[in-house]
Amino acid sequence: MTRVEKHILRSLAGKRQSIWQVLRENPGYLAQITQTLSRLLDQEIIASQEDILCLTDKGQALAKEMGLIPRQDIQCPTCQGRGVVARELFARVRDEFESLAKARPRPSAEFDQGFVTPEVTVARVMLMYLRGDLEKQDLLFIGDDDLTSIAAALTGLPRRIVVLEIDTRLVDFINETARERNWPHLQAQTFDVCQPLPRELAGAFTAAFTDPVETLPGITLFLSRCAEALQGPDTALYFGLTTLEASPQKRYQIQKILLEMGFVITDIIADFHTYLLSWEESITKNFPFLQEGPLDLKPPTVPWYTSGLVRGEVVDGPHPKEKGAATLDQSFYFDEEA
Amino acid sequence: MTRVEKHILRSLAGKRQSIWQVLRENPGYLAQITQTLSRLLDQEIIASQEDILCLTDKGQALAKEMGLIPRQDIQCPTCQGRGVVARELFARVRDEFESLAKARPRPSAEFDQGFVTPEVTVARVMLMYLRGDLEKQDLLFIGDDDLTSIAAALTGLPRRIVVLEIDTRLVDFINETARERNWPHLQAQTFDVCQPLPRELAGAFTAAFTDPVETLPGITLFLSRCAEALQGPDTALYFGLTTLEASPQKRYQIQKILLEMGFVITDIIADFHTYLLSWEESITKNFPFLQEGPLDLKPPTVPWYTSGLVRGEVVDGPHPKEKGAATLDQSFYFDEEA
Repeated sequence: MTRVEKHILRSLAGKRQSIWQVLRENPGYLAQITQTLSRLLDQEIIASQEDILCLTDKGQALAKEMGLIPRQDIQCPTCQGRGVVARELFARVRDEFESLAKARPRPSAEFDQGFVTPEVTVARVMLMYLRGDLEKQDLLFIGDDDLTSIAAALTGLPRRIVVLEIDTRLVDFINETARERNWPHLQAQTFDVCQPLPRELAGAFTAAFTDPVETLPGITLFLSRCAEALQGPDTALYFGLTTLEASPQKRYQIQKILLEMGFVITDIIADFHTYLLSWEESITKNFPFLQEGPLDLKPPTVPWYTSGLVRGEVVDGPHPKEKGAATLDQSFYFDEEA
Repeated sequence: MTRVEKHILRSLAGKRQSIWQVLRENPGYLAQITQTLSRLLDQEIIASQEDILCLTDKGQALAKEMGLIPRQDIQCPTCQGRGVVARELFARVRDEFESLAKARPRPSAEFDQGFVTPEVTVARVMLMYLRGDLEKQDLLFIGDDDLTSIAAALTGLPRRIVVLEIDTRLVDFINETARERNWPHLQAQTFDVCQPLPRELAGAFTAAFTDPVETLPGITLFLSRCAEALQGPDTALYFGLTTLEASPQKRYQIQKILLEMGFVITDIIADFHTYLLSWEESITKNFPFLQEGPLDLKPPTVPWYTSGLVRGEVVDGPHPKEKGAATLDQSFYFDEEA
């Protein structure tokens, strides 16, 4: 019985659940979960009614034999397991960010976008604050459809914020916001991660944040650009990483690369990010596993796509894996897991 | 300005603080923090009155120049940043554990003991539950002065729980509790981590938990014993690790060893554990840096010693670094950081 099977049975031990809730509760990756669901359906351990899943009698007997109890609701209701809540300065930042972000460009599937909730965006900035990566620091964001740069600027704490982003709509939105708010220290520019890092940005930052595509070549490139942009020891790297598109093996490779680049990992906070993915634009285009899976899908009923937050600190170097230009092909955006 | 200095100034930017609160808020390691405090006192950036610290006028000017604001209280008040709270089954477990643990043996400085609060002990078990490492699983605890084994048994979920512990008082307490409660599946035995792992325990477990001593040879040995006890891929390792006795460089080495042993790191939750250290027994014997530091110490006013929780999952192997007997000397318990 694999870990993924066990989690599926546990999600269903208490009650019928939509596929979306089952996905949300599972630490496996999408290809593995959908394959496992197919097998459990074939073996008549679970049954489905459209996108609702339940255990069969056979499944219930199996869950009992495995000692599985209905999933206990023990994640912190106040912070959803993130560990931080928007208080003091950050309560104001969250409110301002919410109203400011109403005018944001809609997510584009072309660039693998899909953004996190305002609460989560500000939670990221709060973690940066707790770790000492905000006050008078120089921050780089590579890709910023979540507008974390704007949330950071709203705190009034960073010295300099640079955003490199492929989507000109976002670049324009960020620069326009900076102009309106009179933030000369926030600047966005168009950038394709396959281009070399602009020379003047190498070694210029004390912290870098990126939410990379989920393939190994893609992640390596995003993290390398961040590493190249950092000043040296004691500077920090933040990135989002989901288990849904990254198997333990892939995450193992990513951690090896991080260590080889000279980072010690200081935080891995599971399910830190909750994403709001639109049905047509994001899900139907970007998740072939769901489309080809055994179930008749309906639009999500819960925010099912979550990702962890990883923070690393430079102990040596940093030593970026990639430096010059890189070539983009399909394997950059998709692999057998993502 | 180092990260550690910045954190000290930030802790004091808002108000006078005891050394214990400053230690609690600092991500540095003890030797580094006490050295830095000495230097800041010498430079008249901070001043001390017994064990209370504050910024001098010079320090306040410096903090302002660095853009430091008084530390914002944004850690989750409900879960203290752990992400889990004792609800449902675990509310009962916490209550029973608290009453049961009242009769526990007092901590012994001889074995580097000092235990976490009942809330934290149960939080560990909750994280194991969330990750699927509890129901019908086979658990090993190497060292268990926190009695996490008993909290796990109280859930009624694990199949088998084995405790290897050097302190016979704890071994007796756990075995007696198991007898009284009629838990034949919980067994403790005396074990010195320098002895080889009992042959029948090798490859016998699905999860292992340890709270190792903080030196690199010590941690390597504890983690190796755990790795040797695990069945193979998909099994899990949990351990506590503090930044107070482990520099980024040491944690980097530990992560390298983890990866070499075949583990992917799935969770690093900072400050997960809050310890209750008795003044005479633990602090005055085990923390020479504090004793030799620049301050006239008084007993702690806050639980200042915290540690993170690290979880790894086997992707390959596991491949323990050490297998046979090991020799114990002073470097096993103490290094220049611990």
